[in-house]
Amino acid sequence: MNRYPKKKDFPVSKIRRYLEPGPVVLVSSSWKGKTNIMTMGWHTVMEFTPSLVGCVIAGGNHSFHMISNSGECVINLPTSVLIDTVIKIGNTSGAEIDKFREFELTPDEAQEVEAPLIRECHASFECRLHDGSLVEKYNFFIFEVVKAHVAASPKYPETLHYTGDGVFMLSGKTVNRRSLFSERLL
Amino acid sequence: MNRYPKKKDFPVSKIRRYLEPGPVVLVSSSWKGKTNIMTMGWHTVMEFTPSLVGCVIAGGNHSFHMISNSGECVINLPTSVLIDTVIKIGNTSGAEIDKFREFELTPDEAQEVEAPLIRECHASFECRLHDGSLVEKYNFFIFEVVKAHVAASPKYPETLHYTGDGVFMLSGKTVNRRSLFSERLL
Repeated sequence: MNRYPKKKDFPVSKIRRYLEPGPVVLVSSSWKGKTNIMTMGWHTVMEFTPSLVGCVIAGGNHSFHMISNSGECVINLPTSVLIDTVIKIGNTSGAEIDKFREFELTPDEAQEVEAPLIRECHASFECRLHDGSLVEKYNFFIFEVVKAHVAASPKYPETLHYTGDGVFMLSGKTVNRRSLFSERLL
Repeated sequence: MNRYPKKKDFPVSKIRRYLEPGPVVLVSSSWKGKTNIMTMGWHTVMEFTPSLVGCVIAGGNHSFHMISNSGECVINLPTSVLIDTVIKIGNTSGAEIDKFREFELTPDEAQEVEAPLIRECHASFECRLHDGSLVEKYNFFIFEVVKAHVAASPKYPETLHYTGDGVFMLSGKTVNRRSLFSERLL
């Protein structure tokens, strides 16, 4: 494993490549000089351009307040080597600990938002709140991805997909069926 | 392969088990005596109770109008043996063909909605529109799952996860990390 995958700029309109398969992600935030990280499984791509992602951030999370107040976050894609870290982040509160320090993760400066990138993750998507109209009712945030950073390799990293009950599915092999698609749907 | 997995009742509050890992699903609908099926990748669980699922159904889809008008649909979970059928469903229009007949799928009667279950799928979730307030702006529907049917075996079916560009990721092995979780988060 490369503990620090070298990330490059990636087109924001193409992030479905990483989020549509449904991986668990780590959401980093910053507010009033403090940072935090949460584990998130409830998210969906909503549009290519602008690049929109909708997600549920429960009100009980310390991150909820930091993200609501700042209107920003970074969605980071961890690979399976980080499985225990992902679980620990989801089972602790940023109100009590500094998760970057506690879990030996490295905050990198983002370009468009104050929230830090997580260096150890395969990809990082800088997000700004686009529509908060369903936050009060469903804790549902619609973010615009304003900047994307992705490691060039591996092309298909092994990601984590949560099924509940402490069980994760790991991403398996890929199958190319491009020949069956209409050009306009690719 | 069992072409007709035998499904049983399943608690609607636990469907995250199948949808949270991010599989491609088939959405069946019914309106004015006709049925249709679409392939969908943009969805997320939003709540356990009521059991809510949010998803994007593009306005250009024939299904969009059928589901908007009926306020109902069934979200079906195909396994990897159906990969070519899933693609063909996504690359044709219900305005032109009868997808159940064309792709040799079997419509089964649902209990709570008019839309049919797809017999060949591993699971079927009967849905009723819960909140359509973001349909006009984002084509985003929030459904309540009112009845769930799931095949008892296999416990972890091989599902399809779309990455764009005609490439699917197949679900891989599962890892149990229950011992690392707080009881309240399981």
